[in-house]
Amino acid sequence: MAPLDLSASSIELTRRLCDLESVSGNEKAIADEIEQALNRMPHLDVLRDGDLIVARTQLGRARRVVIAGHIDTVPVNGNLPTRFETVDGVEYLWGRGTVDMKPGVAVALKLAAELSSPSVDVTWLFYDNEEVTSDLNGLARLARTRPELLAGDFAILGEPSNGAVEGGCNGTMRFDVITRGKRAHSARAWMGENAIHKAAPILQLLADFEPETLTVDGLDYRESLNAVLVSGGVAGNVIPDECRVHVNYRFAPSRSAEQAEAKMRALFEPLGEFELKDMSPGARPGLDDPLAREFLDAVGLEAKPKYGWTDVARFSALGIPAVNFGPGDPSLAHADDERVPVEQITACEEALRAWLS
Amino acid sequence: MAPLDLSASSIELTRRLCDLESVSGNEKAIADEIEQALNRMPHLDVLRDGDLIVARTQLGRARRVVIAGHIDTVPVNGNLPTRFETVDGVEYLWGRGTVDMKPGVAVALKLAAELSSPSVDVTWLFYDNEEVTSDLNGLARLARTRPELLAGDFAILGEPSNGAVEGGCNGTMRFDVITRGKRAHSARAWMGENAIHKAAPILQLLADFEPETLTVDGLDYRESLNAVLVSGGVAGNVIPDECRVHVNYRFAPSRSAEQAEAKMRALFEPLGEFELKDMSPGARPGLDDPLAREFLDAVGLEAKPKYGWTDVARFSALGIPAVNFGPGDPSLAHADDERVPVEQITACEEALRAWLS
Repeated sequence: MAPLDLSASSIELTRRLCDLESVSGNEKAIADEIEQALNRMPHLDVLRDGDLIVARTQLGRARRVVIAGHIDTVPVNGNLPTRFETVDGVEYLWGRGTVDMKPGVAVALKLAAELSSPSVDVTWLFYDNEEVTSDLNGLARLARTRPELLAGDFAILGEPSNGAVEGGCNGTMRFDVITRGKRAHSARAWMGENAIHKAAPILQLLADFEPETLTVDGLDYRESLNAVLVSGGVAGNVIPDECRVHVNYRFAPSRSAEQAEAKMRALFEPLGEFELKDMSPGARPGLDDPLAREFLDAVGLEAKPKYGWTDVARFSALGIPAVNFGPGDPSLAHADDERVPVEQITACEEALRAWLS
Repeated sequence: MAPLDLSASSIELTRRLCDLESVSGNEKAIADEIEQALNRMPHLDVLRDGDLIVARTQLGRARRVVIAGHIDTVPVNGNLPTRFETVDGVEYLWGRGTVDMKPGVAVALKLAAELSSPSVDVTWLFYDNEEVTSDLNGLARLARTRPELLAGDFAILGEPSNGAVEGGCNGTMRFDVITRGKRAHSARAWMGENAIHKAAPILQLLADFEPETLTVDGLDYRESLNAVLVSGGVAGNVIPDECRVHVNYRFAPSRSAEQAEAKMRALFEPLGEFELKDMSPGARPGLDDPLAREFLDAVGLEAKPKYGWTDVARFSALGIPAVNFGPGDPSLAHADDERVPVEQITACEEALRAWLS
């Protein structure tokens, strides 16, 4: 293959990046190509950390923006190489990564190469291992080991948002509520104590719960509270001594992790043992920040809230307001028929260029 | 090993039968020994069907009693060969099969050999594969293929009952109650429909249910209704589209299978899909039968209800009143420390001899 040509259209560049398979853990080849292409740009200061590439302008501007995207994908499932297809008059690029999130990466690469004198300093960031566990995540690694490289006044994550600006994200926590009983042969059930029956009020509480919608920095975050798994029992003739309800609480970014946990404990501790399984705090959209407002005005879009948890929360944890802004329908991410309307790629490219010029 | 000596004490005979390992499927050796030993008795008419042995007196008595026991055990778990041990002054025979149910078999074998002229005709029955699925059960096989060999006015099953007479047995049925919903990513829970939450009224009904106690032929049968297993959910970030509550209903033998099922459907069909998994009707104790009364008077015991399902139900299905009567504590059956107080073996032997003489 010829080296990556960053002067190609962002659509062509998306195709090229998708066909360069880079399932999590296998990002070396794509990271090499990105590093080499950016190294050819004299206006960029390029660093590499594992398979993560940082390319920074150093123009002494008053403000710095971080524009980031992950270069890995979930496993390919017969959906590479990519192809173009037209459905109902709309042209799509189809295949793994065409939504999550090679087009966001393509737009960033193209503008990183093209804009030698943007209106703000830019830190372009291309990172590995976003689609796997948090301890492998390249952005998380950099935040731990070289946080100074993430410094900035505002961050844009090129995650698919249908070309809209999605601010912040809900937090998410998971926990078990456990009821206990006493085993007995079910022929003599009265010798035991049924743990599954004791879970009735837990499920009833969940069924009756009315989740709140909280307004944070002008955006409405809809919360949710759901049992996602339930399990209990030993065998068909044994009174069960344990039942576990695994609950997922998605909470607005105005609640801290501590507040969210306290709220859940208050609800469920009267009904069973409470075992916290994981906790990812949300991210405030930070749209009251002047830079964020300028960005919204420049791209001419109203911000919407992001419900799913994304890496914007890592910027938020560093005190940097962050939004999601990228081509592609997030509900097609990871799908076997993942595909992006190509005009969304061009529209994102133009909006970002207009703001940065 | 010397051939089985049926003139030995029933305790010695129990020990000999236990040490002759006969886990379900491996009954050939013990069946051979039993067949040969009984064939030496001129007053018995001996037949074999697979590893099942039938030995009948043909004295032309007005009434015939079937005395039956299974010769298989659950798998050995380091608890063979047997040994005698004395705990708090009580002498036990310890090891696999010492409760379930080699002592019942030993008592029957001893009396089958000894009583050449019992007061009623007796069909002695020793059968295979009781501890495994019903389709392998030797008694069930005989009831299907040669039911005439099971003909009788009363039946005694030598299952462990602590030397007491336990009449009939509760029926048992298992079914799933299934709730359905619609999958969605849990970050956008409102796009889905939570199947686990819909199980709340099922568990609440079970928690609130007050099982009945029904008196059947003078014995009180305590019923029970329990969720024994529950499962639901797809993953930690997916709204679940299915939840299954697996319920076990133990019902008094005065209810037919059809009545028990109708009762459960009436309760649960308003709350979810109903899927019948298995059904074993109970057995009436039949203690109003004159032969049963005579038996109780002769052994000098009051009958108690049997809660667990046993093969007495197979006799009941053939219209033959049947009771459980054997040495050993049923709660130690299948346990690794299975053991029987040896004096219970002798007591059962003496009671049966007194009645049959």
